Amino acid sequence: MAPARTPPIYTSPQDAANAFYQAFEARDIDAMMATWADDEDIVCIHPGGVRHVGYEAVRHSFEQLFTGDSKLVFRLDQVVLLETVGLAMQSAVEHVHAGDETQRGIAVATNVLMRTPSGWRIVCHHASPTPAVTEAPVAGPLH
Amino acid sequence: MAPARTPPIYTSPQDAANAFYQAFEARDIDAMMATWADDEDIVCIHPGGVRHVGYEAVRHSFEQLFTGDSKLVFRLDQVVLLETVGLAMQSAVEHVHAGDETQRGIAVATNVLMRTPSGWRIVCHHASPTPAVTEAPVAGPLH
Repeated sequence: MAPARTPPIYTSPQDAANAFYQAFEARDIDAMMATWADDEDIVCIHPGGVRHVGYEAVRHSFEQLFTGDSKLVFRLDQVVLLETVGLAMQSAVEHVHAGDETQRGIAVATNVLMRTPSGWRIVCHHASPTPAVTEAPVAGPLH
Repeated sequence: MAPARTPPIYTSPQDAANAFYQAFEARDIDAMMATWADDEDIVCIHPGGVRHVGYEAVRHSFEQLFTGDSKLVFRLDQVVLLETVGLAMQSAVEHVHAGDETQRGIAVATNVLMRTPSGWRIVCHHASPTPAVTEAPVAGPLH
């Protein structure tokens, strides 16, 4: 059994967000969950999926994702970052590729990060599919 | 021409979020935009649509939505609120109905609000369709 790793302390929201995507690409569940706040109010929404609330539910959702065969690679584009002393928001367009470089699709992601006693941690990841173009008529089925 | 309304000051994130949904239901573009921060970094994603960034782009997206015939009614469920002194996050399940009470669908929404000199204002609204059930396999096409 490998020795337990000491959770890293992320000193900026960007560091925590970068670590999130690195853990996603590495399919490393412990590294992934070290980027999240250990809180019952954390929220995770994968593209087209249901909302997961709470540390255990979020962990379970990533465990399910990481059991699949496909390795994913993320390239973030058009990043918007808003930061205050205690909470930060990162909005980005995610270009998602499979490990063999084929494009899986484009998503928009809203990541919310909180400064905790253990450094910056993610409290919300909301990703959803988006059209490839940057300008299109607003015609969603809901709003 | 009606006299210009003085923009309201929302003293809590919840007040601003409530005003957002009231303006959405009333299809009142001025009331809607009074809930947003007047900033080039605000972000709005309607379900299935592209990301709109900046006050003018966000205003234009709501103008397009409000020209349609269908009046929408929102009922928020399972609300999670995280609040710090300067920034807050509201996550909710949106049950969207048409004015005639028929259900249009269910969305998950992440709203981020910032405390500005003019009170709490929205800086991000990200809504996306979600399955009706609360537990389902994670099998989105992207992640």
